[in-house]
Amino acid sequence: MKLSTQPYKGTRDFYPEDKRVQKYLFGVWRQVCESFGYEEYDAPILEPTELYLSKGNQEIIDEQTYTFEDRGKRSVTMRTEMTPTVSRLVAGRRQELAYPLRWYSIPNLWRYERPQKGRLREHWQLNVDIFGVSGTSAELELIQIVDGIMGAFGASAEMYTIKLNSRKFMDYVLSDYAGFEAKQRLELARLIDRLKKMPYDEFVAKVDAIATPAQRKDGAVEKLLTVLSAKTLKDLPKDLQSYASINELKVLLSALDQLGVKNAEFDVTVMRGFDYYTDIVFEAFDNNPDNNRSMFGGGRYDGLISLFGVEPLPTVGFGMGDVTLTEFLRGHRLLPDLVSETAAYLALVGDVHTGAQKLAAELRKAGMNVAVDLSGRKLGDQFKIAEKKGIQNVLIVGENELKTGQFTLKNLKTGKEQKLDVKGLEKALS
Amino acid sequence: MKLSTQPYKGTRDFYPEDKRVQKYLFGVWRQVCESFGYEEYDAPILEPTELYLSKGNQEIIDEQTYTFEDRGKRSVTMRTEMTPTVSRLVAGRRQELAYPLRWYSIPNLWRYERPQKGRLREHWQLNVDIFGVSGTSAELELIQIVDGIMGAFGASAEMYTIKLNSRKFMDYVLSDYAGFEAKQRLELARLIDRLKKMPYDEFVAKVDAIATPAQRKDGAVEKLLTVLSAKTLKDLPKDLQSYASINELKVLLSALDQLGVKNAEFDVTVMRGFDYYTDIVFEAFDNNPDNNRSMFGGGRYDGLISLFGVEPLPTVGFGMGDVTLTEFLRGHRLLPDLVSETAAYLALVGDVHTGAQKLAAELRKAGMNVAVDLSGRKLGDQFKIAEKKGIQNVLIVGENELKTGQFTLKNLKTGKEQKLDVKGLEKALS
Repeated sequence: MKLSTQPYKGTRDFYPEDKRVQKYLFGVWRQVCESFGYEEYDAPILEPTELYLSKGNQEIIDEQTYTFEDRGKRSVTMRTEMTPTVSRLVAGRRQELAYPLRWYSIPNLWRYERPQKGRLREHWQLNVDIFGVSGTSAELELIQIVDGIMGAFGASAEMYTIKLNSRKFMDYVLSDYAGFEAKQRLELARLIDRLKKMPYDEFVAKVDAIATPAQRKDGAVEKLLTVLSAKTLKDLPKDLQSYASINELKVLLSALDQLGVKNAEFDVTVMRGFDYYTDIVFEAFDNNPDNNRSMFGGGRYDGLISLFGVEPLPTVGFGMGDVTLTEFLRGHRLLPDLVSETAAYLALVGDVHTGAQKLAAELRKAGMNVAVDLSGRKLGDQFKIAEKKGIQNVLIVGENELKTGQFTLKNLKTGKEQKLDVKGLEKALS
Repeated sequence: MKLSTQPYKGTRDFYPEDKRVQKYLFGVWRQVCESFGYEEYDAPILEPTELYLSKGNQEIIDEQTYTFEDRGKRSVTMRTEMTPTVSRLVAGRRQELAYPLRWYSIPNLWRYERPQKGRLREHWQLNVDIFGVSGTSAELELIQIVDGIMGAFGASAEMYTIKLNSRKFMDYVLSDYAGFEAKQRLELARLIDRLKKMPYDEFVAKVDAIATPAQRKDGAVEKLLTVLSAKTLKDLPKDLQSYASINELKVLLSALDQLGVKNAEFDVTVMRGFDYYTDIVFEAFDNNPDNNRSMFGGGRYDGLISLFGVEPLPTVGFGMGDVTLTEFLRGHRLLPDLVSETAAYLALVGDVHTGAQKLAAELRKAGMNVAVDLSGRKLGDQFKIAEKKGIQNVLIVGENELKTGQFTLKNLKTGKEQKLDVKGLEKALS
């Protein structure tokens, strides 16, 4: 039987050139999060299925996750998102931890999907959460981190937009303000989420169809459409201007502006999918007209940890996936040319293996990454090997070189050759 | 229903203080591997079950792995080791890759085990492999990497021993030299693996029991015991001294000695479990008398990629697990005191949040990791938060400080206080 060399459907192998991109992404994520005082945590990829069942969504578990029974007849699920897990960890040490708690993680997540562009079965996602802050300074900091990360990747404010809204406000608009019932609100929320993806007339017709004659007569549809037509917070009807979440959004947007985040704006159509959000939510969109889609987002989900029987905590978090981010970076030509971590390939002339190993040990001690040829092939072939591996420099090592301590370093990109001793190599290769 | 905060049985949560240890381990692993020119790769944690079935070990799959059917009725297994996966990746690009290929990875691996000390269901393992080198220079380099890693962790040669043997040699001894049959050889190999864990008399009795009367008469048992009594390569019977693998071991041990690896030695009882090893194998043992056990190992497994229908390749690899390594480091008191990555906690006096955020942004730009207080609590409480998080410095920020640009930095460990401007902070905190 001949085995297949393909990875499991909907997943990716990371050959060194792919892993290099991933390490670059993860490195920027880590650096920016840690610069804001966030600490990394992690947890096992298998969780008891109960963790995802808290809202009774057995159907989603059955259809969209990797769930199976272990040999002890316990149902386990490969994690589909990190929020339930981080809530579990915080709840487990609710009393001992020091708040505000700033945590981040870069888990791989699994979903049973029909593989398609940007939707894989396994992807990685940066998760950033702050626990214990009830004011908008929490949202402010997380959006600053988003801005910091995008800036570190070279993205400018024109390339993407951070759109903010409040779930609490929208619930208020749909229920108290416009007067829709619970079941209608659910349908309307889903419809609003797709408003920008359909002709406006079609949207209005659909809202009309959801409303009852009495509601239409009461002006419920008009009220909702007026709210939805607001382009900025100031466009909202006067009687909604003083709603608490709207005031918070004003404070937040003004603080972001002061701190130099110029691409954040109110967008009344931003709803975010997850049920657990309780107030302000945000979502980032690529401004590239060819890829004008949601890239990542987050929001406030106060109280989720109470599922574990502990006191609730104000919490804000966001997630940013590797697949959509990579598409954004490629689309805007922001992915740098990543070269091999190996600074030089030691090409050997004659039987100098032990001497070359000693020289390599010396270079490594001085902090250089060097690979010694073990192919035993001709010098020209050794050059080709280095080139194929994307290593920029070849260092020629023969008996004479080892005796004199003078080595020829050739840059394969520029073709430049230098005669250098070990000290000189340290300078040239660091 | 109240959810449990415990991780899935046999697995670990990594709270920030645990993750810090893991990041330290992974960091050393990466740094040393890359200094030898090794490139990191990765692959999905789910593999088609066929990948582990190549040797027909359905029983092991059923009993010891996480195997289940996906919704498309394909059997998948959570990876239990990385060797089948790396073989799959190399086979998939057999013709395109440049040899020698130096690859490493740090996958998490899953086994269905009864959890016990040092045996968890999920653990991480450094995997280092070199493809395309048939001579012992490959083994030499991998053992140099082991030595480099252990040295980077602060381990000295007295703390552990690297024991080498050859599977090909042992096969020869058991079959051609002593004359045992295939089934006997399997039993004897397992027995030899446990030789040092039982009284010698017991071992001899067991060997005797395996041998047939004819074999005993022919001196098979004596021959085997003579080989097993060898403490060094020179102690081996003369007629075995010229066996190719013995010569290779001599060359290898001498080269290691020349390169300063002083704790490598021949050990005729080292067998290694996996079926796929073809010649030289090695295994590292903790010299701590309280924990005198196998820590990690590897060996040559030429030809494994031919399972994928491509030309075989000479290959040597080793794996080093995080759990046993951590036990070793703790046992020898080599784990450093790891502090928070956050250099300073900005404690706020009065309503200076925006100013503090701007200062923080400035410090971050200069490369410092700083967290801004968002608790709004009294200064003394803010100090306690910083202390609880293990952050070493507190920076006091009030209106006056923001006006004058002079800030008080207090080291919580030494109690030392300094008045510094931003430049001074850069020096003090980097």
